[in-house]
Amino acid sequence: MVEQITVLGAGSWGTALAIVLADNGHQVRLWGHRAEQIEEINTKRTNEKYLPGVRLPEKIAGYADLCQALDGVRTVVLAVPTKAIREVLRKVCACIREPITIVAVSKGIEPDTHKRVSEVIEEEMGKLLRDVVVLSGPSHAEEVSLRHPTTVTVSSKNMEAAERIQDLFMNHQYFRVYTNPDLIGVELGGALKNIIALAAGITDGLGYGDNAKAALMTRGLAEIARLGCALGANPLTFSGLTGVGDLIVTCTSVHSRNWRAGHMLGKGKKLDEVLESMGMVVEGVRTTKAAYQLSKKLGVKMPITKVLYEVLFDGKDPKEAADSLMSRVKTQEMDDLVNILTEPQREK
Amino acid sequence: MVEQITVLGAGSWGTALAIVLADNGHQVRLWGHRAEQIEEINTKRTNEKYLPGVRLPEKIAGYADLCQALDGVRTVVLAVPTKAIREVLRKVCACIREPITIVAVSKGIEPDTHKRVSEVIEEEMGKLLRDVVVLSGPSHAEEVSLRHPTTVTVSSKNMEAAERIQDLFMNHQYFRVYTNPDLIGVELGGALKNIIALAAGITDGLGYGDNAKAALMTRGLAEIARLGCALGANPLTFSGLTGVGDLIVTCTSVHSRNWRAGHMLGKGKKLDEVLESMGMVVEGVRTTKAAYQLSKKLGVKMPITKVLYEVLFDGKDPKEAADSLMSRVKTQEMDDLVNILTEPQREK
Repeated sequence: MVEQITVLGAGSWGTALAIVLADNGHQVRLWGHRAEQIEEINTKRTNEKYLPGVRLPEKIAGYADLCQALDGVRTVVLAVPTKAIREVLRKVCACIREPITIVAVSKGIEPDTHKRVSEVIEEEMGKLLRDVVVLSGPSHAEEVSLRHPTTVTVSSKNMEAAERIQDLFMNHQYFRVYTNPDLIGVELGGALKNIIALAAGITDGLGYGDNAKAALMTRGLAEIARLGCALGANPLTFSGLTGVGDLIVTCTSVHSRNWRAGHMLGKGKKLDEVLESMGMVVEGVRTTKAAYQLSKKLGVKMPITKVLYEVLFDGKDPKEAADSLMSRVKTQEMDDLVNILTEPQREK
Repeated sequence: MVEQITVLGAGSWGTALAIVLADNGHQVRLWGHRAEQIEEINTKRTNEKYLPGVRLPEKIAGYADLCQALDGVRTVVLAVPTKAIREVLRKVCACIREPITIVAVSKGIEPDTHKRVSEVIEEEMGKLLRDVVVLSGPSHAEEVSLRHPTTVTVSSKNMEAAERIQDLFMNHQYFRVYTNPDLIGVELGGALKNIIALAAGITDGLGYGDNAKAALMTRGLAEIARLGCALGANPLTFSGLTGVGDLIVTCTSVHSRNWRAGHMLGKGKKLDEVLESMGMVVEGVRTTKAAYQLSKKLGVKMPITKVLYEVLFDGKDPKEAADSLMSRVKTQEMDDLVNILTEPQREK
């Protein structure tokens, strides 16, 4: 069924998802707050800063006015940086009268409140929220916009809503959508993997090689799964597309901003310089702070997150940090792995 | 404690492990059956075909005579291709009188018998085997020879033997060794990941991109864990260095022979041409046959292995094969993932 859908956020991921929806026959309103960018989208059919070389389908219309973009729409894709979500949603709530379904596609945990994106959305929207569906998985925007084969997962407290969103996005050409009822695990996998991508970028920037990176990613997956389980996620979700799948693509592809930011840190640049030169949001920086706070509060061991926090916020030298991760005393691998799981019967 | 250790097989991995042992102060005898190569090792201190540009430590001595190489030695690293193991061990048994410990470092499953490497070794050596210890993990030989940081896992039926081998190989500069008592899981992870690396090479050769490869690796990890659990492995081992860690390094690094072979297949070359142009053993080809036979025998679903088997042995077109993997009907992700685990109480 063809629908009118609004995408909030005309960065690379919002634009790529708008392309998928347009390819599936839907009418898409793509909202961004920079008037020149919206003008470019509507007149030149491009979004050069974020998806260079890609021509936008005719079914995408750019909107610079938020209330116009939302008028009469019941499904809204929220693709703004996590830092901007509260501000944007307050404006959204001032525009709408009827509850809407939000598809949340940005990944992060809020520092201090430690809320997941779907929780922030619930808190801000109250009765104006019909459902929130999270969409996550290994999916670089650049490749999606080129129609390369991609698989993602949707999750929600209301799985009927998730299935409706699955149908909107799924197509037989290049975009496959799975469902997973573990909302907490799906959100945390997507958010926390950015921490490991930053760390992997650092070891690559230091020239440590693929063996070291694979070990770091393995240990990193174990520690984000440990935190996830402490927060109520199903450990199996971390073995799926939104866990190890997203971790792999984010740590091993040059498309990843978090990896690129880490790579520059490993090469000796300072965090401020790195963030400035990126010109795009690096979600992992904020999520590292939130995860570090959570690990202390819950007593969950997260050695990589701790060391990365020290590099990002306490000026620790990246090489010293990486070496400290390598030089732990000799140990039984299963001691670490068994801690992934929370159920006592599995702690053999 | 400094020991005299013999490494059988002067390919890249045998030579790299000889370097680790020599760096740790041990006297290493490196045996190979090509006299010119041994001559090169002893006179030029290089092994150019396998580790170009690397200078071998003085503590490594090349041997072309097997019985001389084994004389008086109690620890032997077996680094020959899995196909050659039985033949080499028969010759070993003809040389020795006292039982020896074998460190098995090649990865594969024997077609038809479906035996793991440690089982083949037990069968061939009988009473002349003291212990067999398996060493596995994300470890490209090229990087180890350059002393890049690397972590591996050792396992054995006799964990005291595994700890002795851990002490021989472990150092504080670049080589870390963990232990894991799940011998079956450690062996199967290392062997089966080559199947997924071949498939990942094919999708890369077809130009499908990083999103598709991450999805393939995620599904691949699930299916090799399914087979592993059916064969008695602990599912957690597939989340460790010898599971997902080795999978990552083998699927994402250009150093990997299995990935490179798959890449050529994806570019349209025929299997015979590929194997000929490699000039080194591609273990995944043989292991795909063994795993395919096992999956049929045990009734374990392995869609990637099945399709790859058809490409390798039935002449199926790689593009058609990759597309068939992408076009499965829409599904609940957890259905697949829950099947990873064998215990009924986890099948919620």
